[in-house]
Amino acid sequence: MKQTYFESLEHASGGTTFEADKIINQLAFNADGLIPVIAQDAVSKRVLMLAWMNKEALEQTLLTQRMTYWSRSRNEFWVKGKTSGNTQVLVSMSFDCDGDAILCNVNQTGGACHTGRADCFYLKVNREKNTVYIAESEMP
Amino acid sequence: MKQTYFESLEHASGGTTFEADKIINQLAFNADGLIPVIAQDAVSKRVLMLAWMNKEALEQTLLTQRMTYWSRSRNEFWVKGKTSGNTQVLVSMSFDCDGDAILCNVNQTGGACHTGRADCFYLKVNREKNTVYIAESEMP
Repeated sequence: MKQTYFESLEHASGGTTFEADKIINQLAFNADGLIPVIAQDAVSKRVLMLAWMNKEALEQTLLTQRMTYWSRSRNEFWVKGKTSGNTQVLVSMSFDCDGDAILCNVNQTGGACHTGRADCFYLKVNREKNTVYIAESEMP
Repeated sequence: MKQTYFESLEHASGGTTFEADKIINQLAFNADGLIPVIAQDAVSKRVLMLAWMNKEALEQTLLTQRMTYWSRSRNEFWVKGKTSGNTQVLVSMSFDCDGDAILCNVNQTGGACHTGRADCFYLKVNREKNTVYIAESEMP
C-alpha cells in the first residue's frame, strides 16, 4: 500500500498542522470502505480489540467521542457498548505513517470483549509447547 | 465475520489448551490470505505499528521469534529490521475472540517506524480544533 500522500508528510516537522478532513479523505480505506482500528485502554495501555470503521463511523466517533465501528458481521454501525453498556469513550486518535491504520486510546467501561472478558486477545500462544491456551478469565 | 469455530471456544475455561496448528488453521485470513497484526512494545506497552501476516509469515515468526510480516507494497516476506537493524523480537502472541486479529508483544530495537520514529502513529487528531498534527519526533 504505497501511500504517496502520506509519504509527503513524513518529513514535516513536529507540530505541523493540517485540516482533519484533508487527512481523513486520504486514509486508505480498503475495497469495502473500511480501515482497521486498534482500541487501547488509555490508562492501563492494554490493547482491548481490533475493529473496523468506515469514513462515517470515523466521523461519528470524532463527533460524539463514542467509539463507533462498522460491524462486518451485522453490516451496520456499531456504537460500542450501546447494547452491553460496556462503552468506549474516545480519549485520543492517531493515524499511522501509511494512513492505513488508526489507533484510539479509550476509556473503557466493563469488558471490551463481547464475552465479558477485559479484552479480546485471550487466546494465548505457548511457543515452546506449540499450543494455544485460553487465558484465565480476567474481569476488567 | 461470524467465526463459528472461535465461538465454540468462548466458554472454554481458563487454561484449556489446544494444538497451535489447529487454531492457526482456523484463523480468518482475508481474501488475500492476510490477517492484521498489532505490534506492541512488551515493556512500554506502546502500540508500535499494525502490519499483516500470511500463514507462512505467522509460522516463521513463531519459529524464529523474529517478527515476519507480509509486505503488501513489495509483495514479499518482510523480516522486520532485516534491512534497518530495527528488529522486533517476539515476546508473546495472542489471537482475538473472532480469530481475525493478532496481538504481538515485542522487544523493539530502535524505531519501529520506517521514518525512524518510535512508532508509526505520529499523525495525531486534535478533535476540538478539527485538525491533525505531526507529533514531535520522539526517538525511541
